[in-house]
Amino acid sequence: MFSPSIQSLIEEKADSFIIPASRIAFVEDENPLYHAFLILTKMKYSKIPVLDRKQKVVGLISLAMITNKMLTPDNIVIEPLSDLKVKDVMQTEFETINFAHTNFETQLHLLVDNPFIPIVNDNNIFQGLLTRREWIKAFNYVTHTIDEKYNITEKCVSHEEN
Amino acid sequence: MFSPSIQSLIEEKADSFIIPASRIAFVEDENPLYHAFLILTKMKYSKIPVLDRKQKVVGLISLAMITNKMLTPDNIVIEPLSDLKVKDVMQTEFETINFAHTNFETQLHLLVDNPFIPIVNDNNIFQGLLTRREWIKAFNYVTHTIDEKYNITEKCVSHEEN
Repeated sequence: MFSPSIQSLIEEKADSFIIPASRIAFVEDENPLYHAFLILTKMKYSKIPVLDRKQKVVGLISLAMITNKMLTPDNIVIEPLSDLKVKDVMQTEFETINFAHTNFETQLHLLVDNPFIPIVNDNNIFQGLLTRREWIKAFNYVTHTIDEKYNITEKCVSHEEN
Repeated sequence: MFSPSIQSLIEEKADSFIIPASRIAFVEDENPLYHAFLILTKMKYSKIPVLDRKQKVVGLISLAMITNKMLTPDNIVIEPLSDLKVKDVMQTEFETINFAHTNFETQLHLLVDNPFIPIVNDNNIFQGLLTRREWIKAFNYVTHTIDEKYNITEKCVSHEEN
C-alpha cells in the first residue's frame, strides 16, 4: 500500500510533476536521422520522444541509437545520417502513462527502470513527460514537510510478534 | 529537517545505494575521443566518469559533448574522434560526494540537478556512483513500509494558528 500521508503530501505537488509537451524537444518519425543527431547534440536530454504527424508518441530516440548506426567494423561513417530516417532507428517498445488512469504507485514503479515516461491522453496524443527529476523534487518536499504535518511515532512491536 | 522516520527507513537500504566502481563503465582522460565514442555508443549510460591514471575522477563525458565536436557549419565530420582526446572535450565542473562527509539531505539535493554523482574517498579516488534510480527505489520502499513501522496521524492545527 502506498502511504496515505505521503500520497497526500505528493498530491500538493502533483501539478508540477508533468513537464508539458510545449517545453519538450521531440523529433518526428519521418525526419532524417541527421535532424535527430543535431537536436540530441544540442539538447540536454539524452533521449527524446518521437511523434508522428498526428502528435502521437511512436518511439524514443537517443544519440547512442544513432551513433550505433554509424559504426562499421572498420570505421565510423556519416552516411546513415542522411540515408536513414528516425523511424528506422528509434526504440518502439516503451512505456507510456495516461494520467487519467495511473496512480502514484504505478508512476514510481515505472520510473525505477525509466528515467522518464511519455504522458499521453486517451487518443495517445503526447501531453508531456514524467521524469525521475520531478519525483526526486517531490521526495525532497516529503522528507522536509511530513514531520510538520503529521505526528509520527514508532509502532511498539513485542519480540513475540516478531 | 530531514524526517527522522524516513531517514531510519532509508538507512536500512543505504548499503545498496552505491553502484560500485567495478560495475561502472568509465574512460581515461588520455584516451582518444574515438574510444569514448565507442564506449558511450555501446553502454546504456548517457554520461560516464572520466578517470586519470591514478583512478581520480577528473571529468564527465557524454555522447552529446563528443558529437558537438563533429559539427561544422556545413557538415558532420569524424576527424575530431581521432584528433582529440577525452580530456579536450570532457566536462570538468561537476559535483562529487564523499560518503564519509555527506548526509542524505545533501545527496537528495544534489540529485535534483544531476542524474548521478560520482562517489570519491578522501583522496578523490573513484568509488562508484550515486544515482537517481537508486533513490527512486529507496523512495518506493519508504512509501510501502512507513505505515507498517510507524503510526502516522495528522496534526490538529487550529485555524488561528494558520
